[in-house]
Amino acid sequence: MNNTHTPSDISIRRTLISVSNKTELLPLAQALTQYDCEIISTGGTARLLKENGISFTPIQEITGSPEAFGGRMKTLSFQIGSALLYDRERDASEAATLGITPIDLVVCNLYPFQEKLESGADFSTLIEHIDIGGPTMIRAAAKNYQYVAVVTDPNDYASLIEELHQSGGALSLATRKSLMQQAFNHTADYDAVIATKMDQELGKPSLRLTFDQIQTLRYGENAHQTAQLYRERTATYALADLEVLHGKALSFNNILDINGAIEAVRGFEAGACAVVKHNNPCGLASGSDQRELLAAAWAGDPISAFGSIVAFNRPVNKDTVTFFRLDAANRAARKFIEVVVAPSYSEEALAYLRIHKNLRVIVYDFEASNQAFKDLRYMDSSLLVQDKDEKLYDKLKSVTKKTAAIASLRPLITFGIRAICSIKSNAIVIVREKDGILQLLGMGAGQPNRLIATKLAIEKSKANLQQAYSGPDLEGYIQTELAKAVLISDAFFPFADNVELAAAAGIRLIVQPGGSIRDKEVIAKCDDLDVAMIFTGLRHFRH
Amino acid sequence: MNNTHTPSDISIRRTLISVSNKTELLPLAQALTQYDCEIISTGGTARLLKENGISFTPIQEITGSPEAFGGRMKTLSFQIGSALLYDRERDASEAATLGITPIDLVVCNLYPFQEKLESGADFSTLIEHIDIGGPTMIRAAAKNYQYVAVVTDPNDYASLIEELHQSGGALSLATRKSLMQQAFNHTADYDAVIATKMDQELGKPSLRLTFDQIQTLRYGENAHQTAQLYRERTATYALADLEVLHGKALSFNNILDINGAIEAVRGFEAGACAVVKHNNPCGLASGSDQRELLAAAWAGDPISAFGSIVAFNRPVNKDTVTFFRLDAANRAARKFIEVVVAPSYSEEALAYLRIHKNLRVIVYDFEASNQAFKDLRYMDSSLLVQDKDEKLYDKLKSVTKKTAAIASLRPLITFGIRAICSIKSNAIVIVREKDGILQLLGMGAGQPNRLIATKLAIEKSKANLQQAYSGPDLEGYIQTELAKAVLISDAFFPFADNVELAAAAGIRLIVQPGGSIRDKEVIAKCDDLDVAMIFTGLRHFRH
Repeated sequence: MNNTHTPSDISIRRTLISVSNKTELLPLAQALTQYDCEIISTGGTARLLKENGISFTPIQEITGSPEAFGGRMKTLSFQIGSALLYDRERDASEAATLGITPIDLVVCNLYPFQEKLESGADFSTLIEHIDIGGPTMIRAAAKNYQYVAVVTDPNDYASLIEELHQSGGALSLATRKSLMQQAFNHTADYDAVIATKMDQELGKPSLRLTFDQIQTLRYGENAHQTAQLYRERTATYALADLEVLHGKALSFNNILDINGAIEAVRGFEAGACAVVKHNNPCGLASGSDQRELLAAAWAGDPISAFGSIVAFNRPVNKDTVTFFRLDAANRAARKFIEVVVAPSYSEEALAYLRIHKNLRVIVYDFEASNQAFKDLRYMDSSLLVQDKDEKLYDKLKSVTKKTAAIASLRPLITFGIRAICSIKSNAIVIVREKDGILQLLGMGAGQPNRLIATKLAIEKSKANLQQAYSGPDLEGYIQTELAKAVLISDAFFPFADNVELAAAAGIRLIVQPGGSIRDKEVIAKCDDLDVAMIFTGLRHFRH
Repeated sequence: MNNTHTPSDISIRRTLISVSNKTELLPLAQALTQYDCEIISTGGTARLLKENGISFTPIQEITGSPEAFGGRMKTLSFQIGSALLYDRERDASEAATLGITPIDLVVCNLYPFQEKLESGADFSTLIEHIDIGGPTMIRAAAKNYQYVAVVTDPNDYASLIEELHQSGGALSLATRKSLMQQAFNHTADYDAVIATKMDQELGKPSLRLTFDQIQTLRYGENAHQTAQLYRERTATYALADLEVLHGKALSFNNILDINGAIEAVRGFEAGACAVVKHNNPCGLASGSDQRELLAAAWAGDPISAFGSIVAFNRPVNKDTVTFFRLDAANRAARKFIEVVVAPSYSEEALAYLRIHKNLRVIVYDFEASNQAFKDLRYMDSSLLVQDKDEKLYDKLKSVTKKTAAIASLRPLITFGIRAICSIKSNAIVIVREKDGILQLLGMGAGQPNRLIATKLAIEKSKANLQQAYSGPDLEGYIQTELAKAVLISDAFFPFADNVELAAAAGIRLIVQPGGSIRDKEVIAKCDDLDVAMIFTGLRHFRH
């Protein structure tokens, strides 16, 4: 924008229209005609204009050459290139000498290469759908945006028509510059799809990701790191689309944890609630009564739950959220959380959550989100790409003398495996069913040594049972309760010591993938200690 | 490749040369002339050919139009477009009627938009460096690759010359197709840079990342997930560039852990060794004697160290690696690890490591790697981008009655903060200096509750001290040793309970960021228990 001679408004006297997608074209052409703009057009676009009584100049009259070679040559010409590219100030007399009349607006979009690709068209059909003339016109007009406007997206026609009406047939510099940006994005994204297809065809697969910055965050994971949030351009729905109904701006860590919390409750057929801290669910429950779910998830780690992210996979009602006691006279009784996430909230629930000024209330549309997305890890200018970990188990198979009632335990085991898929490795969970609710009773996460993870899960479970119990014989009570629970490991036990630890705590059923060279030893230890063990056949590392 | 009529070899009878980068052009032009190929050329390229006595046809003779508008119009024309695009079979008679002679080869690369951008050129200069005619020719030739070859990279000239010589002046279909793929990549990458710049200019920042698939991995994080490794196209050095000198193919988890191990030893001025398990360093040491470093890092968690990834930031010698006892007659004495990473290995060290058939021996070039890369987290079609966490502390400040000798402790504290930056939050480390080596004595990682992390770090430290001690009064020894160590927290203590726990174990110096609303309470507890505390002013969350 350093050219001080650039005119602000350009009267649109001549427009070249050559579009593949003819949506909404006629109103634009009619508006242009209204301001005495000459329309130049090609092939199918020209036919459409003719059918609708809009007069135009066939492009051949400008280029002096026919449409040729099965439509491969229509617009590419010295005349059109010059009309788009010449500097209206510097090159005016040269243009006059060469008989070039300026074109002020290009309306163009490209052969639908991507649609053909997605429809599974064969390679030669794809090649025919690589547009050559279109990108040339679009790029030439965009380069000369100081004098020329170029529109590539039918969604922009309405605002252009409005501007034409308001200005009496002109387009402003701001509009031309914004259209220029869109034009170069249109051609860049178009060629990115073509190049990526050719890379694949030649056995050199590539991956091109385009993101739009949605937000500058206050800071990153820590205050000395700057950070931004981006949205993948081609996504139909993204985490970045979440809606903030109430509360402070989201932080970097909030967004990380919200994602973890959403992943933890996604995929449950029943209702689910997760309490997430530092990207690990420290509480998780599944069932039907939402308030009871929240209470059960909260009880998974009532200490860590303070300052956590709480997610639900069902619309949230007021009865549920009063659990937080945000209006308690006694401040200490109020349960402070950072974020609530859900697909929606009743009016009353939202009004109640608004009591806490800073609490972020977030809407995430589970239905709209694309569950097929991949798991991408960027590090050191490299990218690891993998399928998401979505399959829960291969087959549940009893491997011990003591057998488990797999059919009736399947819902609880499935719940526990879902839980372990959300927890950092090495991970151990202890889960139980109580009053129709499936609950994470305790977990051990992120340990180099599996035995420590087992120990953490047992200790947390015991502490939680103790917290909720005031009767006699605490130790007996804990043993009885753990005997009804299931301990699940994300990977096989390398040694039998984990079994000893679990059995000593009262655990009577262990679920693990199996596959260690010491499986026999591990199973023998179960048999010795009267513990049942089920193999799943699938590991669930998550790092 | 479905067109069965596509000729394999195309004799190059006419070549259009129009290059911005003139590197290595003359030998190619000379080779073409040798096979009676007519050269058509433009502007500066034509001048170069003329100066070197290579005959050519000025492009104006083909187009019938002058180079016009300050060079904006050179090649764009019906004649050139047709010569590149027409189907040599289907359209032959139409071309003859229209007087179009085919062009068989295009040698073209584009105005250096990116170089101008990097040099800080102003916006109008950048606009002038958007090439319009070049991409048109390149894309037209690429679309018609069945008959036309297009070369955009001077690095490809040598192999083209060789092919011309071997075939007597022709280029094969395989070559043309491969050049086509490169051509569409050239224009896609070119427009990606332009579009990204325009997005920024219009206040709508975007991020475009292009990755090339380097490898299909056997599977992902778990066996039921497929996975691939990609390399960022514009990187000068990437994790994906690591060299495997020996051993089995790397797995997905190996690559994750290798990155973690590299990050753990990167940035130390002295030598460093990390032992990584599940993406957390369970052992870390810094100093000069490499074998002692390895021993000290290994001692950080001698149980978890089995099956770990071990990284060094210095060339590795044989004395160091014999620590693994790979040749021990007693198999149980051999220390099994998955991967060793280092900038290089002495021949003897490498020969020794080769004893273990499956051990992966990896070279990573710390010097070549770009430490300025960003931290990117992709999730659910969104991307969080932040600066890497590279600043260690703001200021080391004693906040307790008992003061610490900050000057002499600075190396140990700095070491400990580096360690905590590599460990998942909530994280606590206990570090010490022994015989000139800085060592991670124990750590607690990935806990929702900081108190549990503190407990884990203390328990691991005690176990490690016990492991190495055979004298009397173990408890007294542990207290004495922990009194010389430093406990560091990645984030502030929310309550004074962590201080109580640490003091009870014998810890006399705690380092933490500070910044809690209960700092006063925490400091008072230190004063009560005769513990010194240092605030750093910087948190180091890592999730």
